[in-house]
Amino acid sequence: MPTAVNAHSEKIAQAIKLLPEHQLDMWITISRETMHGKDPALSLIYSGDTVWLSAFIITRDGANIALVGNHDADGIRQREEFATILSYDEDFRQPFLEILNQFKPERIGLNFSLENPAADGLSYGLWLKLQSLLQDTPYIHRIYSAASLIGQLRGIKTPGEIDKIITSIDCAQEIITDVGHRLTPGLSELDISMLFKKGMKIKEVSAAWSADGCPAVNCGPESRVGHSQPSPDSILHQGHIVHIDFGVIKDNYASDLQRVWYLPKEGEDSVPPEVAKAFYVVRQAIGKSAAFIKPGVLGYEVDHIARQMIIDAGYPEYKHALGHEVGQKAHDGGIILGPKWPRYEGTNNIPLQSGNVFTLELGVPTSAGYLGLEEMILVEDDGCRFLSKPQEDIWIIK
Amino acid sequence: MPTAVNAHSEKIAQAIKLLPEHQLDMWITISRETMHGKDPALSLIYSGDTVWLSAFIITRDGANIALVGNHDADGIRQREEFATILSYDEDFRQPFLEILNQFKPERIGLNFSLENPAADGLSYGLWLKLQSLLQDTPYIHRIYSAASLIGQLRGIKTPGEIDKIITSIDCAQEIITDVGHRLTPGLSELDISMLFKKGMKIKEVSAAWSADGCPAVNCGPESRVGHSQPSPDSILHQGHIVHIDFGVIKDNYASDLQRVWYLPKEGEDSVPPEVAKAFYVVRQAIGKSAAFIKPGVLGYEVDHIARQMIIDAGYPEYKHALGHEVGQKAHDGGIILGPKWPRYEGTNNIPLQSGNVFTLELGVPTSAGYLGLEEMILVEDDGCRFLSKPQEDIWIIK
Repeated sequence: MPTAVNAHSEKIAQAIKLLPEHQLDMWITISRETMHGKDPALSLIYSGDTVWLSAFIITRDGANIALVGNHDADGIRQREEFATILSYDEDFRQPFLEILNQFKPERIGLNFSLENPAADGLSYGLWLKLQSLLQDTPYIHRIYSAASLIGQLRGIKTPGEIDKIITSIDCAQEIITDVGHRLTPGLSELDISMLFKKGMKIKEVSAAWSADGCPAVNCGPESRVGHSQPSPDSILHQGHIVHIDFGVIKDNYASDLQRVWYLPKEGEDSVPPEVAKAFYVVRQAIGKSAAFIKPGVLGYEVDHIARQMIIDAGYPEYKHALGHEVGQKAHDGGIILGPKWPRYEGTNNIPLQSGNVFTLELGVPTSAGYLGLEEMILVEDDGCRFLSKPQEDIWIIK
Repeated sequence: MPTAVNAHSEKIAQAIKLLPEHQLDMWITISRETMHGKDPALSLIYSGDTVWLSAFIITRDGANIALVGNHDADGIRQREEFATILSYDEDFRQPFLEILNQFKPERIGLNFSLENPAADGLSYGLWLKLQSLLQDTPYIHRIYSAASLIGQLRGIKTPGEIDKIITSIDCAQEIITDVGHRLTPGLSELDISMLFKKGMKIKEVSAAWSADGCPAVNCGPESRVGHSQPSPDSILHQGHIVHIDFGVIKDNYASDLQRVWYLPKEGEDSVPPEVAKAFYVVRQAIGKSAAFIKPGVLGYEVDHIARQMIIDAGYPEYKHALGHEVGQKAHDGGIILGPKWPRYEGTNNIPLQSGNVFTLELGVPTSAGYLGLEEMILVEDDGCRFLSKPQEDIWIIK
């Protein structure tokens, strides 16, 4: 399937269609100096940057207007994403109010959310600035959160976006396979991470998260699991599990996978039963939760299936969520497949929708090291399908 | 001068010293999922990322505490930037309130600012979340903007930071010199930008702003000047000025320079008087404004000197500010050397301080193309000094 020529225009069109469902007449993304942080919702609808104070305005009538500083105007014109481009030199307020007065929106959506960082791009200072710009206008009383709109816009992937995610997964899988062939006793976690970095460089892709923690690499039972950096002192020995958590950004879309290998001890001709059982349980927990997924189910329900299996098998409960959305970012915000902990409040009880992309990830400790897997799935009308090629057995290092 | 071993610890120590001057007992930077945008103030004091809700707390007593999710804790420990690291599994609120109750701050600074995007990293959603976390505590009434603190912390560069900025400038200047030797008639703006990109790749540095507009390249009078992308259709011909706006990020610090060349027409043995005059006026405007700079002068006063010279020489007034701060970012926020336009409100009347780094940049149109220069200066106790090697004459393409 050919990728859409202009992915951002595709998302603008999707936003226009979504506005009525979210009871909004107008959606405004306010931006300035994206160098200091670009609103993650803006990245969906505009591929460039802004320097001066800007407003990206989409209405339920189908208008899509970018009001930007003069110095930013050429850049946005060249991109051909927004239909109407207005620019200003000295004062933003007057043209901004003219647009509002033209459309007279009753309900205006802005980018803030307590729960979803991907829908929370409006800074508190810009919020205050907007309050001052709208002083003495009726619009100051017509502001609502656009979080549900952004959640859907971001979460329901277009065919073009799904293609890009698959391409990103394929790229990560190729790098993983290649590194797998190079694993040998004596390598440190840092050495292994450098093999991944070399693979990314060759394929001209970047790490899907903080470069020094992507990949995460864990060799053996002493290694710490989490968002930490691979250690030069943690060495791959016989009898160790190698666990990696890795993804790439390719063409602006992310992948996020966990894989495991086992380096046999002298004379071992199969994986120790403890490790084999751990792999089986983790794999089953992912499979069972995937089988449960379909549009309408809730995040905590999906998480519960995997979590209960792990507990029933006698392992300690994993201290994170089973899954998160993936898109332009590895952690794409929105829905979390997570338990009813305060930390996941409001993100784990949103009905899944066709077009959502999630990770399914968990792991258990063993005496050979941490055994964790992470797959990626796409919610479809009648269930879900794996976008990653699920790891079916622990890989043996030869 | 050797660069400090840990630049972030250096900034934490600086923040502790600055707190009393800004009437704050405690400065809190709240963060989550830096993948969707990292608070630019956090980048000064912490080199890593966070996934879960986190608080980076610095007190006037010298305490510096990071409260982070368990999965982020190892990453932050390895960096050795914060003295105290606390972590949580399920609920952020309780340990957060315990820290507040331990120090009982009367005045708490948070990262929001109407004027300074580099001091405005707190999202509106996180502001609301904080309001809910602090409900029924006295601290909800003790919140103030930390913008002036952040402005100084960011704006007053440490010796280690100045070294890094100089290194970044030197790198950009080397690339510019090298590309200058390769300029020939028939190259497009896009071709020229690719020469810069090749130079950056060789030196393993990244563009100082949006990659497709860094460098900006303008060949001849038809080219559009601003934050636009170099065009494949705009070709360097005889009689053209080549103007570039370019900088790199090296070791986390930025440079930002503008330079000009002239490609003579057949038989021309010197630069046309119109172009020579334009260069002289622009150069003089930068020189005169630099000579005026010292601690205590205000941004709009500096801008006025250059702006008036341009107007007096009969050129159209430049439609931007004369200068901005440079540091980790090319546009580093804080003080703007800009006119009294609404757009620059509150940023152009802050007294300059020793240790500030600024650009001085402006240009004028000519019939051969846009002639713009940009230099970088460091404010010192008794004036300022150029960190860039100022362009003294227009360079001739041979």
